[in-house]
Amino acid sequence: MIKKLLVANRGEIAVRIIRACRELGIETVAVFSEADRDALHVRMADEAYCIGPTPSAKSYLNFTNIMSVATLTEVDAIHPGYGFLAENADFAEICGECNITFVGPSADAISKMGTKDVARETMKRAGVPIVPGSEGIIESVEDGLAVAEQIGYPVIIKATAGGGGKGIRVARNEEELRKGINITQQEAATAFGNPGVYLEKYIEDFRHVEIQVLADNHGHVIHLGERDCSIQRRLQKLLEETPSPAITEKKRKEMGEAAVAAAKAVNYSGAGTVEFIYDHNNGDFYFMEMNTRIQVEHPVTEMVTGIDLIKEQIKVASGKPLSYKQEDVTFNGWSIECRINAESPEKNFMPSPGKLKSYLAPGGLGVRVDSAAYPGYTIPPFYDSMIAKVITHGATRDEAIAKMKRALAEFEVEGIETTIPFHLRLLNHETFVSGDFNTKFLEIYNIMEESK
Amino acid sequence: MIKKLLVANRGEIAVRIIRACRELGIETVAVFSEADRDALHVRMADEAYCIGPTPSAKSYLNFTNIMSVATLTEVDAIHPGYGFLAENADFAEICGECNITFVGPSADAISKMGTKDVARETMKRAGVPIVPGSEGIIESVEDGLAVAEQIGYPVIIKATAGGGGKGIRVARNEEELRKGINITQQEAATAFGNPGVYLEKYIEDFRHVEIQVLADNHGHVIHLGERDCSIQRRLQKLLEETPSPAITEKKRKEMGEAAVAAAKAVNYSGAGTVEFIYDHNNGDFYFMEMNTRIQVEHPVTEMVTGIDLIKEQIKVASGKPLSYKQEDVTFNGWSIECRINAESPEKNFMPSPGKLKSYLAPGGLGVRVDSAAYPGYTIPPFYDSMIAKVITHGATRDEAIAKMKRALAEFEVEGIETTIPFHLRLLNHETFVSGDFNTKFLEIYNIMEESK
Repeated sequence: MIKKLLVANRGEIAVRIIRACRELGIETVAVFSEADRDALHVRMADEAYCIGPTPSAKSYLNFTNIMSVATLTEVDAIHPGYGFLAENADFAEICGECNITFVGPSADAISKMGTKDVARETMKRAGVPIVPGSEGIIESVEDGLAVAEQIGYPVIIKATAGGGGKGIRVARNEEELRKGINITQQEAATAFGNPGVYLEKYIEDFRHVEIQVLADNHGHVIHLGERDCSIQRRLQKLLEETPSPAITEKKRKEMGEAAVAAAKAVNYSGAGTVEFIYDHNNGDFYFMEMNTRIQVEHPVTEMVTGIDLIKEQIKVASGKPLSYKQEDVTFNGWSIECRINAESPEKNFMPSPGKLKSYLAPGGLGVRVDSAAYPGYTIPPFYDSMIAKVITHGATRDEAIAKMKRALAEFEVEGIETTIPFHLRLLNHETFVSGDFNTKFLEIYNIMEESK
Repeated sequence: MIKKLLVANRGEIAVRIIRACRELGIETVAVFSEADRDALHVRMADEAYCIGPTPSAKSYLNFTNIMSVATLTEVDAIHPGYGFLAENADFAEICGECNITFVGPSADAISKMGTKDVARETMKRAGVPIVPGSEGIIESVEDGLAVAEQIGYPVIIKATAGGGGKGIRVARNEEELRKGINITQQEAATAFGNPGVYLEKYIEDFRHVEIQVLADNHGHVIHLGERDCSIQRRLQKLLEETPSPAITEKKRKEMGEAAVAAAKAVNYSGAGTVEFIYDHNNGDFYFMEMNTRIQVEHPVTEMVTGIDLIKEQIKVASGKPLSYKQEDVTFNGWSIECRINAESPEKNFMPSPGKLKSYLAPGGLGVRVDSAAYPGYTIPPFYDSMIAKVITHGATRDEAIAKMKRALAEFEVEGIETTIPFHLRLLNHETFVSGDFNTKFLEIYNIMEESK
């Protein structure tokens, strides 16, 4: 079993990992940038070391400094959290070379899923449904036009090295496609150092439904049901829930089996998420991508299954088999997560970093808060703007919504602006309450301008 | 359904009730004493009114002022919480006369259970096991001596109007009994205005195991399993858990059925708790008393059953049937509650009121905090010293303990002393961890003085 673990991250996920380690009796080492000296994860860990200046490239992405701390503190393992080095195959590789356990899948699995056209091909071979499109990278604009002719417009141009909503462009006709391929290739070359793009049929009316999987190094792979993350603004998730209001038990089983097949195809190990485009008009679903790490929205799955995903990651990384078989996994009630960001929803979600003059998180039955904020803490402007995740659990969706409304109403944050008012409006929105919406919800409804 | 409710209480239970009301869409009215102007329940309620000066008799126990606020604000119902007016039959009666729903059982049920010798007789008739003792109030010292002769020493002298550990005295021989009867009668006359005392066989080696019941006005009574509250200091509970490490499924069923019979015997309605003396040497159990109100430790039951007790209280008071049948009640995992008091465990639990210079409650998976504290709040010296309840939930007792240890370790309170260091020592104590202890645990082990 792992005895001492370095958390190569910051913010709420660093706190989350430290909490799990403490409960498992594992010593923790935190690392921090110069901007994060006063961060909560630094206070909570058993040891903490500065790994460089504020820019992430010099600290949280700095292999050398992180590995130096890991070696000096003699940790057995490194947990990368999400973002930063979590899906960096080279980093996973280097951990292995230093005889330090990387809490995550193999470098090979990260790499196969991280390269979008390779992932697409791998899924195709594994029998996981994929969106109709090009066979791998398109060679030329003419090649692209031929594919589009065959699958029909609109199509989507995707950089193979892209992700998180970047390196993506829709084309609705030949002219847009010609231009789009060139622009996306140039952008991708600059942003990701890889100009490769591929084409897919563009499905406009869909829900983002993802399946949580867990796999160990003994050949076991299980799924923990879905999360619906259709509430997005510019491809950034803002609210997630499980179960999905659009998924039946039969569909859950089908998608779960597809996700398990996806994980098996790359010899996956640990916690991962297979994201699907879910066509709620006909029940078809298509592989979108696999995130080879823990996700921000993992708590909703924990609330309904009772399974601690971070602990399972650590157990699996220690070489243990999964604590659960597929038939042990049951789903109890409904859970919703709202991401509370230091942003001004009234001003087009402009970042609003600064000092928390007051901070009091909600509590009570069915309310969980994962946060690294505290009264007097100054939210630095350099990183992700998320300051807290509020997660509620109720017997039904209505109850989970009611709990979220009361939790957000009692959440006290002064000194900065937050997305709490946005979420309160969202939770009261007729269409949201109905459960019948797609990923364009926030394009269709400008909920900050509509009267309640 | 109730539309507007007055919370006739303060502190965490007032906050707890306001939260439940908000989730149910019920408007809330808070009341507060002059010492509680800055209290959290005042900030959280829709409306709040001062009901008098600091002494409880002039505010939280002041029928006239509370009923005036209730009438003026046109509430449908009053929730008394625990303590104060929660077990005051006269108050329940007056609510009824004013056409305001009292969220609790009938005045008759409160009264029958509140008068200890009547309760004992009622239980005896209902077939609920009672401790051998006198038939009702003893008429004279000689009468008491005769009873003691018959049941054997040691015996316990109990004031029929007593409660909460007051008006109780053990006698190990004839001399102690003669003296004890006189003293207890005098004390009871002064403290409770009723000199009546009765005798019971004194059982020394037992666990405090209580059963949560829920009853509606349509003849349904169910139980929600037990809570083990054997960790007590001077008869004050400090830590509670469910399930009890000493109770089998068979015993739970037996005790549950006895508790249901007890509730039926007084036509009980709402949430109530039947407390038992549990003889863990032979599995016998005896009725101790019934608390005709919600209890401080109710959250542990909520964590393992998923049933919101405050919402059920309110639904039942609204005339609705219970949401659950006995066969719907399932028990999932283990839950522990630690009462965090503003007391100095190093100085014999001396009260430590004052200003919270800093306050940051723990969070994350499986940790619930019910509290009315906030950063900058001044704990007044006039009321109960409890500032927070930390409740954890895990798959096993070990996991619930591990979660509690990490939660308490991250709980930041500055400016006052708290019982957190006491609880951390308790949770690490070999005997506590073994689960094998009785109500004398804290008499036997002085855990603040033992080295860890």
